[in-house]
Amino acid sequence: MASSLISRHFALSLQKNLWLSAPGCRHVSKAAPQAQVEFDFNGPSMKTEVPGPRSQELTKQLGEIQNVGAINFFCNYEESRGNYLVDVDGNRMLDIYTQISSIPIGYNHPALLKLMSNPNNLSTLVNRPALGILPPENFPDKLTESLLSVSPSGMTRVQTMACGSCSNENAFKAMFIWYRNKERGHNTPSEEDLSSCMVNQAPGCPELSILSFMGAFHGRTMGCLATTHSKAIHKLDVPSFDWPIAPFPRLQYPLEEFSRENAQEEARCLEEVEDLIVKWRQKGKPVAGIVIEPIQAEGGDNHASPDFFKSLRNIARKHGCAFHVDEVQTGGGSTGKMWAHEHWGMDDPADIVSFSKKLLTGGYYHRDELQADKPYRIFNTWMGDPSKNLILAEVLNVIRRENLLEEVTRSGKALLNGLYDLQAQYPGMLSRARGQGTFCAIDICDDATRNSILLKARDKGVLLGGCGDRSIRFRPALVFKEYHVHIFLNIFNEVLAQHK
Amino acid sequence: MASSLISRHFALSLQKNLWLSAPGCRHVSKAAPQAQVEFDFNGPSMKTEVPGPRSQELTKQLGEIQNVGAINFFCNYEESRGNYLVDVDGNRMLDIYTQISSIPIGYNHPALLKLMSNPNNLSTLVNRPALGILPPENFPDKLTESLLSVSPSGMTRVQTMACGSCSNENAFKAMFIWYRNKERGHNTPSEEDLSSCMVNQAPGCPELSILSFMGAFHGRTMGCLATTHSKAIHKLDVPSFDWPIAPFPRLQYPLEEFSRENAQEEARCLEEVEDLIVKWRQKGKPVAGIVIEPIQAEGGDNHASPDFFKSLRNIARKHGCAFHVDEVQTGGGSTGKMWAHEHWGMDDPADIVSFSKKLLTGGYYHRDELQADKPYRIFNTWMGDPSKNLILAEVLNVIRRENLLEEVTRSGKALLNGLYDLQAQYPGMLSRARGQGTFCAIDICDDATRNSILLKARDKGVLLGGCGDRSIRFRPALVFKEYHVHIFLNIFNEVLAQHK
Repeated sequence: MASSLISRHFALSLQKNLWLSAPGCRHVSKAAPQAQVEFDFNGPSMKTEVPGPRSQELTKQLGEIQNVGAINFFCNYEESRGNYLVDVDGNRMLDIYTQISSIPIGYNHPALLKLMSNPNNLSTLVNRPALGILPPENFPDKLTESLLSVSPSGMTRVQTMACGSCSNENAFKAMFIWYRNKERGHNTPSEEDLSSCMVNQAPGCPELSILSFMGAFHGRTMGCLATTHSKAIHKLDVPSFDWPIAPFPRLQYPLEEFSRENAQEEARCLEEVEDLIVKWRQKGKPVAGIVIEPIQAEGGDNHASPDFFKSLRNIARKHGCAFHVDEVQTGGGSTGKMWAHEHWGMDDPADIVSFSKKLLTGGYYHRDELQADKPYRIFNTWMGDPSKNLILAEVLNVIRRENLLEEVTRSGKALLNGLYDLQAQYPGMLSRARGQGTFCAIDICDDATRNSILLKARDKGVLLGGCGDRSIRFRPALVFKEYHVHIFLNIFNEVLAQHK
Repeated sequence: MASSLISRHFALSLQKNLWLSAPGCRHVSKAAPQAQVEFDFNGPSMKTEVPGPRSQELTKQLGEIQNVGAINFFCNYEESRGNYLVDVDGNRMLDIYTQISSIPIGYNHPALLKLMSNPNNLSTLVNRPALGILPPENFPDKLTESLLSVSPSGMTRVQTMACGSCSNENAFKAMFIWYRNKERGHNTPSEEDLSSCMVNQAPGCPELSILSFMGAFHGRTMGCLATTHSKAIHKLDVPSFDWPIAPFPRLQYPLEEFSRENAQEEARCLEEVEDLIVKWRQKGKPVAGIVIEPIQAEGGDNHASPDFFKSLRNIARKHGCAFHVDEVQTGGGSTGKMWAHEHWGMDDPADIVSFSKKLLTGGYYHRDELQADKPYRIFNTWMGDPSKNLILAEVLNVIRRENLLEEVTRSGKALLNGLYDLQAQYPGMLSRARGQGTFCAIDICDDATRNSILLKARDKGVLLGGCGDRSIRFRPALVFKEYHVHIFLNIFNEVLAQHK
């Protein structure tokens, strides 16, 4: 493998040559800045169509065990490095989807390989504790050096969970518990509360609701799913709750060019939110909490302004609803800040912030008063996994050491500018280029063309994902540098030219 | 540490001496059989009360971050071995609770340490894939050699998930999807299905239900929680679904002495199940599936006969409901079989069997027809974790190599006989000794005495857990041998004597 790996310096010089030799290239001319990545490949390298014969064989084998309708191809994770995912047919792709946005610092980062080779960490790998009752000695320290070192403003408390859905489910529960105690004026349930909840009835299981937004994605377990409204296939045939659903602003991009129109659209949505809160209170199903993504991801990379979120936070406060910001996809650095909500510039942005994916463990931060008043209310067997906290602590070290948030900001600018240029070049095909950091997206004229572009790009060695009805979303790892942006733009340009 | 570890042979001879010198001991006289465990401690060793000063200090520290009301003490997992959990104050306890029944083969098993030291496995630890779209090359093989090598009868398909709750949530979704396609007569949703589900309304989000049992525990996310009825604190203040809840048989023990009474009680419950299915169909909320534990665990270790489960399976079939057996706590070998439902002796025991805990990964097996018809219906980012499959494959090797299911059967007999003896000795305090394999329990006269016994036993070096209103449940690892049973019985006897 060593022969196919090159030093950063060599990669850069190669890349400049590639870039300069690319046809029709005019997006970026300056050389990419120096970076700290020890190993990287020099670009995509394709040997077969994707999926290749070995992937097809394995898909057939797995098809005897599971539904394989969503399988793209099988991977050789041992051979993958940095921004490059290698498949089982020897194809090497520039990965701008990163396992649905869940790989923080690329594949096989040397710091992580070193960490996991350390025999001192063996015990953490083979003895998974029930964290809620018997935590390991280093648990408070590991939380402090990992999750709490990047706490959202105003939050010093965090609860780990196994995945994004469990994180949101438990965040919802925390809001319901908080709301009911507030309604009671104390935290002592009545006998009727205790007996009725055992048979799923009010008042013990109250008719409370969570307000969510059309286009939102908050997970697929039944509580979360009642707040998810991105695609029908996620929700079809599953019973749900009668909870209020507000419109999410449909803004025009670039945001700064349409500030007046966008402000009107946001005001319309905010008004609807207040109406729904009042209406559901009158229906006897008061809104205990509002849940929202800082950028709707699955739903099509829909942005809103800091003013929108500030107003929404105020509406929540005014009506006594908790405010839950779901950073499962936006959190972890890809917007150029650790949390997308930091772009709002608020001291007190939320009551609850949930995370997963790039944070490697699920969980949620919360303000003190959102902590469940009694043990065993927010609880399960594992409540997370210390082996993930261990990796996360090192990932955060790498992010700081390699200044990856600054890199993301730089790469993100190059990416968005490149998308603007392409949009100008292909006006019938591309529109609505948008993004924050490298968390970018662009719309394609229609669903069929979008899907064709995704497949063509893959065959040329660039792995991308779709979102919404006809968007392509960009979700590279935090080690995606300016020269990777240029590799991508070259290939993307070629693919678009084929579709023109 | 080496000095505190002893060979199996030496442990056995020590143990015999301990046993013989124990006061008032008359439960078991024969020597325990030879075993294969390489390392074990020679018994509990207590230095402080539990929690000791270091645990108290850490609990205070963690209290700044989380609710610590459920924390027992902090652990030194590095120093823990086999059946012994070592805490941060140097106390060494015989662990008969095993992280809420989730440690399959004891702490730091040499085979697992070796596995995790193998550099070939590093990549699996640092590159967590999105299994539903980009699985690793060895994924089908690892599933085959791990989960599929212990498939329940009639099932060749398995879906991994991250935890027990997610497993059950997705099993419920699979049953809803299956049921609705059956109702439609085809799997093409109508336009109305697709549009109504986006706003949580029927027919897209249908009013279907899952029938569960009073005393059941199936998890804490909102779908699962609607089928959990063990303790009010789990459910209080969380909105729920109006789903039917049947009585679970309250049997008299030992089962074989009360077969006539128990059969009557089971018939009563079965009749109620059928009534509820009819009633909920009339209410317009038909029962898509029935979910049940083979032994209700959290709810108080409630058993039912194979005949009961066979009849229930038939009722499900008769009414067109799917039958879901939740083996999250009972699965993995502690009943003396890999799955507790194997004791029913059926070729076609269930439509879905869910698991987690001792299996190290969550997930569910299912009959072919319960597979979701389209991709992305049962889906999430991670869909399990290959690093857990890796460990599970080796755990299953150890179970086979060390004949652990036979060991469990042997230890379980010794344990249950010991409990019968103690029950005869303390008739006012103990009752209803019951169990299958080492999955045993006994009732204490009242809740306060139960809790006092649990704490006293802990201070003497035996870690136990409660369940139900006033039961103690025994959940040792599969490496819990007859001589561990005798260590436990000696100490338990001393504790009971103090409470007489």
